[in-house]
Amino acid sequence: MPRIDLDRIEQRNATGYPAEHAALVAGRWVRRLGPAHGLSDFGVSHVVLKPGAASSHWHEDEDEFLVLLAGEAILVEEGLRTPMAAGDMAAFPKGDPNGHHLVNESAADCIFVAFGRVPTGDCHYPDIDMQWTGGAYRHKDGSDF
Amino acid sequence: MPRIDLDRIEQRNATGYPAEHAALVAGRWVRRLGPAHGLSDFGVSHVVLKPGAASSHWHEDEDEFLVLLAGEAILVEEGLRTPMAAGDMAAFPKGDPNGHHLVNESAADCIFVAFGRVPTGDCHYPDIDMQWTGGAYRHKDGSDF
Repeated sequence: MPRIDLDRIEQRNATGYPAEHAALVAGRWVRRLGPAHGLSDFGVSHVVLKPGAASSHWHEDEDEFLVLLAGEAILVEEGLRTPMAAGDMAAFPKGDPNGHHLVNESAADCIFVAFGRVPTGDCHYPDIDMQWTGGAYRHKDGSDF
Repeated sequence: MPRIDLDRIEQRNATGYPAEHAALVAGRWVRRLGPAHGLSDFGVSHVVLKPGAASSHWHEDEDEFLVLLAGEAILVEEGLRTPMAAGDMAAFPKGDPNGHHLVNESAADCIFVAFGRVPTGDCHYPDIDMQWTGGAYRHKDGSDF
């Protein structure tokens, strides 16, 4: 059955973020849709951002694409705020160090779907002192949490 | 600017289909979103299916994922019709020979976004006497159009 039944897919807000940054993503609820349906070419994440929640990062070597399904969010880049509403889409080519940041400043849930290859390289979080490098979360200067 | 501005992306209903099958997809208007935004990991097509239009195929070696943005469509598989509406999603793992078929039987446009790797292998069209094989459209028995 190709149609996605979200109710059958576990929704998690668990994170591997170090404790001091975990609160940032506590309002971010994720379902991984690809593996549940036999997809391996790319990952598909269904994400609910609760009011006040945010997501922020950029990848060194994976393209990313977002489709907003419901609600509203502000796409924050360096010096630029772009409102996004249901039906809006955004593309983030790999290697662009202008970290993107999706913030739900509204009073309702924001729901989006994110596509990308399964990340293998480093990942950067411009707004907090954290990076994913060498298979672990570390401070930006490379020191351990 | 990561947010997709559809008005800036060319919309085409051109097809490489042989003349006898081209009418099938005349009501299918496609925008390729990936290249316009520097994405190369996977393809993203924004598709408008006019009332009565259909799309149908399966790939040997590419996963595919659809997100319905507006309108309605019937997802037709062998012996199964599944109505889909805005916000619904569907996943099609590579190699599954149960060809999928999206038909707009409504009176309004149906709009969806399709994700997949850039196809390199053969592609099959279960409902018409056509296949993409060896870099060309051919009849199912391998003969030329």
